[in-house]
Amino acid sequence: MPYISVEEHLPGITGLLEYRKDTAAPIRALTQVLLRGPSTLTEGERELIATIVSHRNKCTFCVTAHTAAADILLGEETTTAQIKENISTSQVSDKMKALLTIAAQVQESGKSVTTESVQKAKDTGASDTEIHDTVLIAALFCLYNRYVDGLSTVTPTDPAFYKGLAERLKNNGYNRLPQGYDHLKK
Amino acid sequence: MPYISVEEHLPGITGLLEYRKDTAAPIRALTQVLLRGPSTLTEGERELIATIVSHRNKCTFCVTAHTAAADILLGEETTTAQIKENISTSQVSDKMKALLTIAAQVQESGKSVTTESVQKAKDTGASDTEIHDTVLIAALFCLYNRYVDGLSTVTPTDPAFYKGLAERLKNNGYNRLPQGYDHLKK
Repeated sequence: MPYISVEEHLPGITGLLEYRKDTAAPIRALTQVLLRGPSTLTEGERELIATIVSHRNKCTFCVTAHTAAADILLGEETTTAQIKENISTSQVSDKMKALLTIAAQVQESGKSVTTESVQKAKDTGASDTEIHDTVLIAALFCLYNRYVDGLSTVTPTDPAFYKGLAERLKNNGYNRLPQGYDHLKK
Repeated sequence: MPYISVEEHLPGITGLLEYRKDTAAPIRALTQVLLRGPSTLTEGERELIATIVSHRNKCTFCVTAHTAAADILLGEETTTAQIKENISTSQVSDKMKALLTIAAQVQESGKSVTTESVQKAKDTGASDTEIHDTVLIAALFCLYNRYVDGLSTVTPTDPAFYKGLAERLKNNGYNRLPQGYDHLKK
């Protein structure tokens, strides 16, 4: 049961974004520009960063939601499974391996990011902006994971919930609650 | 040396907020509404939440800046020193002890927040909104601390820098770079 009175039919982050709309608006805007705005990283690659951080933070709601979003955007379900198991042996590009490694370091602490891991990202072709965005997306999901779990929000167990949510995140982005969202069942 | 090319004269978060202004805008807006918007928690109390989280994340830039901001707002320097040492024996109210304890749990992980710590906050008079805001401020500073340290930004050592920054945060808030900021020396 959530620690505060959020709307019962809105699980995970969705109830929190309705609870305080003046804080939700900039959170949505930041997520939209980082995960859906113009970038040399694909939307699928950016969802992989959200996925690895949420996975390492053990935030079930977020990791399931962003795994589903990445799977839809990538058109397959192998990559998300592989990066959770082992980034270095996964099928992503060398640049993405380096960026996901940085994201996993950010999950631990900002201080865990090393000169070596950043150099490896640059050696594989990552730009300053890609490194910046990787760190900020990883930091943003450290916020989300703590917000969702720190208030003990409800985590749906039905995979169909996350599939529906991921479809809506793909089609509508993060700027507002997707149309028809209220009618999704837990 | 920062991992990416930020403006040399802008240390810590300040160079990052200039580096990518379209992500900076919602980060500033979220911070402004949470730390300076209408609230039953004082601005000083909210800066204490920022301080304890930054302290536990060992982010020198952030903890020094928000300690300075809290000190100015509270009009004394004892409370910030005490909460870093031991929340439970500090001179803050029982409600603030409970909220700072929740914030410290969020710093570890969202999952570290317990039913007991939330109940204690409610027993000492904390409202749902105060608990919500405490968790979200703590989560936001987990973002900031990782953003600042994850990109290895410069940390000024001169206390006068942080005093000047804190004065500007008190007078101007978080929505934009305070006037004259560019001319502050590292």
